[in-house]
Amino acid sequence: MGYFYSKRLKVSFQEAEDKVRSALLDVGFGVLTEINIKDAFKEKLGINHKNYKILGACNPKLAHKAINNEINIGILMPCNIVIIDNEDETTEVVFPKAEALLDITSNSNIIKLSKDVDLILEEAFNNIN
Amino acid sequence: MGYFYSKRLKVSFQEAEDKVRSALLDVGFGVLTEINIKDAFKEKLGINHKNYKILGACNPKLAHKAINNEINIGILMPCNIVIIDNEDETTEVVFPKAEALLDITSNSNIIKLSKDVDLILEEAFNNIN
Repeated sequence: MGYFYSKRLKVSFQEAEDKVRSALLDVGFGVLTEINIKDAFKEKLGINHKNYKILGACNPKLAHKAINNEINIGILMPCNIVIIDNEDETTEVVFPKAEALLDITSNSNIIKLSKDVDLILEEAFNNIN
Repeated sequence: MGYFYSKRLKVSFQEAEDKVRSALLDVGFGVLTEINIKDAFKEKLGINHKNYKILGACNPKLAHKAINNEINIGILMPCNIVIIDNEDETTEVVFPKAEALLDITSNSNIIKLSKDVDLILEEAFNNIN
């Protein structure tokens, strides 16, 4: 079982990001963190890298359940969505497989919750076109 | 193999956060993201929760190597450090086991890299007292 699934959109990087944020919001996931890899590599390493962003998405109710069931679960939160510029006028959108990632907890309540997370994230993913 | 290790510090939540940030910087890991769970739960759910922060730490050179070896690795970045107020004048500091978390990639270069990450993070962890 892999740890992600992805699709290629025939839109610009910025358009893809807008679509991802909007689709996440529609299913109740807010974006709490953003890492702009291109900017970070330019600033810290002086390296030119293609557009690459990591958005940290979270549903407050599910996060609350998760922390109540496993106090250290913050190590595995939020859910990261990755957006990658293919530099051919298409953009890759990559979603996490929460169940695969949270299996490491060996906590049945968390694994059950991760299945709910995956159903919701898959809905958002399917709505991105 | 668990996915984290932790220690209890006899300091306030704020002091613990300062110590964590300083120890991470000393080993070349910057904090790129911060999630304040207490504030998020208050704002989004109206729930009072104890102090709980997730810091997303990253070393630019290691992140660059990781992305070059596995383009979708952003799903598993950055390394999260969790800080939890025990509300008894002690604070829990929780570090990730990168090797355990990145094992899911089944990519030998990434797993090798994760061992390097763990050595560096363990050094930071040991310097927090």
